[in-house]
Amino acid sequence: MTDVSTPTGRTPSRELEQALVDAAERVLVRDGLGGLTVRAVATEAGVAPMGVYNRFGSKDGLVAAVLTRGFEGLRAAAMASEVPDPVDRLLACGHGYRQFALDHPQHYGAMFGAGFASAAPTEELVDRAAAAFQVLVDQVGYAMDRAVLRPGDRLETAQVIWSSVHGAVSLELAGMVQVADPGANYEQLLRMLLDGLR
Amino acid sequence: MTDVSTPTGRTPSRELEQALVDAAERVLVRDGLGGLTVRAVATEAGVAPMGVYNRFGSKDGLVAAVLTRGFEGLRAAAMASEVPDPVDRLLACGHGYRQFALDHPQHYGAMFGAGFASAAPTEELVDRAAAAFQVLVDQVGYAMDRAVLRPGDRLETAQVIWSSVHGAVSLELAGMVQVADPGANYEQLLRMLLDGLR
Repeated sequence: MTDVSTPTGRTPSRELEQALVDAAERVLVRDGLGGLTVRAVATEAGVAPMGVYNRFGSKDGLVAAVLTRGFEGLRAAAMASEVPDPVDRLLACGHGYRQFALDHPQHYGAMFGAGFASAAPTEELVDRAAAAFQVLVDQVGYAMDRAVLRPGDRLETAQVIWSSVHGAVSLELAGMVQVADPGANYEQLLRMLLDGLR
Repeated sequence: MTDVSTPTGRTPSRELEQALVDAAERVLVRDGLGGLTVRAVATEAGVAPMGVYNRFGSKDGLVAAVLTRGFEGLRAAAMASEVPDPVDRLLACGHGYRQFALDHPQHYGAMFGAGFASAAPTEELVDRAAAAFQVLVDQVGYAMDRAVLRPGDRLETAQVIWSSVHGAVSLELAGMVQVADPGANYEQLLRMLLDGLR
């Protein structure tokens, strides 16, 4: 049977699209969201601006493609450790969330700030953003089923947790945390969540 | 005794400075942080750009003056209700914090986002930002002294609370909350904090 998953099996169009999103990510990391323009990405990828326009329509479509990948990465980071113990699983989810933000500060800032508002609301972006949040909703359900969190609306509880970790991570990225060790304070926050929601 | 606190008792220089900060706040609300330029503020206030430069040095100094006022407002909002009951006092502090953000979304976004990083770090700004956080540290101490929160490092506990409320408020301002009623979810978050930290 022929292996069609090798690079040569991909369509050139799909390969180009991925190469353009790769270039867009490099521009975002280097120049921030404000620098993520069709022209900059075309230059970075070594193609004509029309090649970017043809695939993403505009800067908004380009931002959407980068954020879509960001939410895929966040989802993977949040469910990196699917250990059986529900407490360990929630903690691993929280650690994965922070690590993603620290590893990809420009992505994180764009995903939950001006970037999301300005991005074209493509089906793919909306879908991936929802999937990332769903990881947390599922973890909450898993923990409620095992009486580690008290029974309640999974969505409401997941929102409370997300608000808290998002705030901690945002302040850390902005360099505004008022204590000496943001990592240790984040551990306190995770323990507080477990205590406050059990 | 002559009343020197009447408007005519103020120095014209101080009056002009306040008028310029008033104008800068109107520009921030209307055009966002990106629109807050020396030129725009001069036009809004009806003075020459040089009049703004002379007082604030640059755009960074102007941003610092607006954020300074923002932190004064946040401090006032967070300590609006100094009721004796420590639980009610913490809840009032949390409600005041959210209300300030909802009433001044552009200020809030600038105070805890790109604005603070880009502002000139004037003594006044650093002082007012610290004073706003100190309100929360003091409330935490008041609650610990009355055994409503468990004993611990006041600063660390205040940071955990601030992270949580900041995250909730930021997601609400960004329109990213995943539940139907952000206000009700914020109440859940405040109760969760009290349960998790007592």
